[in-house]
Amino acid sequence: MVIYDITDNKRRGKLVKLLEGYGKRVQKSAFEMILNQKQYDELISKIPLYIIQEDNVRIYKLRLEGEVLAWGSNLTQDEEVVII
Amino acid sequence: MVIYDITDNKRRGKLVKLLEGYGKRVQKSAFEMILNQKQYDELISKIPLYIIQEDNVRIYKLRLEGEVLAWGSNLTQDEEVVII
Repeated sequence: MVIYDITDNKRRGKLVKLLEGYGKRVQKSAFEMILNQKQYDELISKIPLYIIQEDNVRIYKLRLEGEVLAWGSNLTQDEEVVII
Repeated sequence: MVIYDITDNKRRGKLVKLLEGYGKRVQKSAFEMILNQKQYDELISKIPLYIIQEDNVRIYKLRLEGEVLAWGSNLTQDEEVVII
């Protein structure tokens, strides 16, 4: 799971394009993705190239048995409660 | 971990106030929190009262051995890489 706080539209747009190659956008500032080790390593090597100090990007490694609860509308139209 | 997409300032502000009672804000739209089962149950019973259908709130239950990587500035001034 990747979340980001990037005020600059251009930098944020570029990061979004990068992340779209790896997973699905679930909120304006959040992507969920299922990655193998190679993809994960690749992604974390690229992210620092897309951002500057004032930005903030966080990656959470979730276990497969991790649980997600969701309310309200959803960019991906998933079911209300999903188990990943 | 709680993330939210809420365009309405008033509703978002109220939800932020609620979440501040449970954990720390790590991005504009994200909180991390360590909760016992009672607090967790309490929180997920309250969230639906704070939002409407057009909003989106997601809760990720992370294992204690979950890993977080972070780049750039951070609202909480944590170290760059934290293990939760």
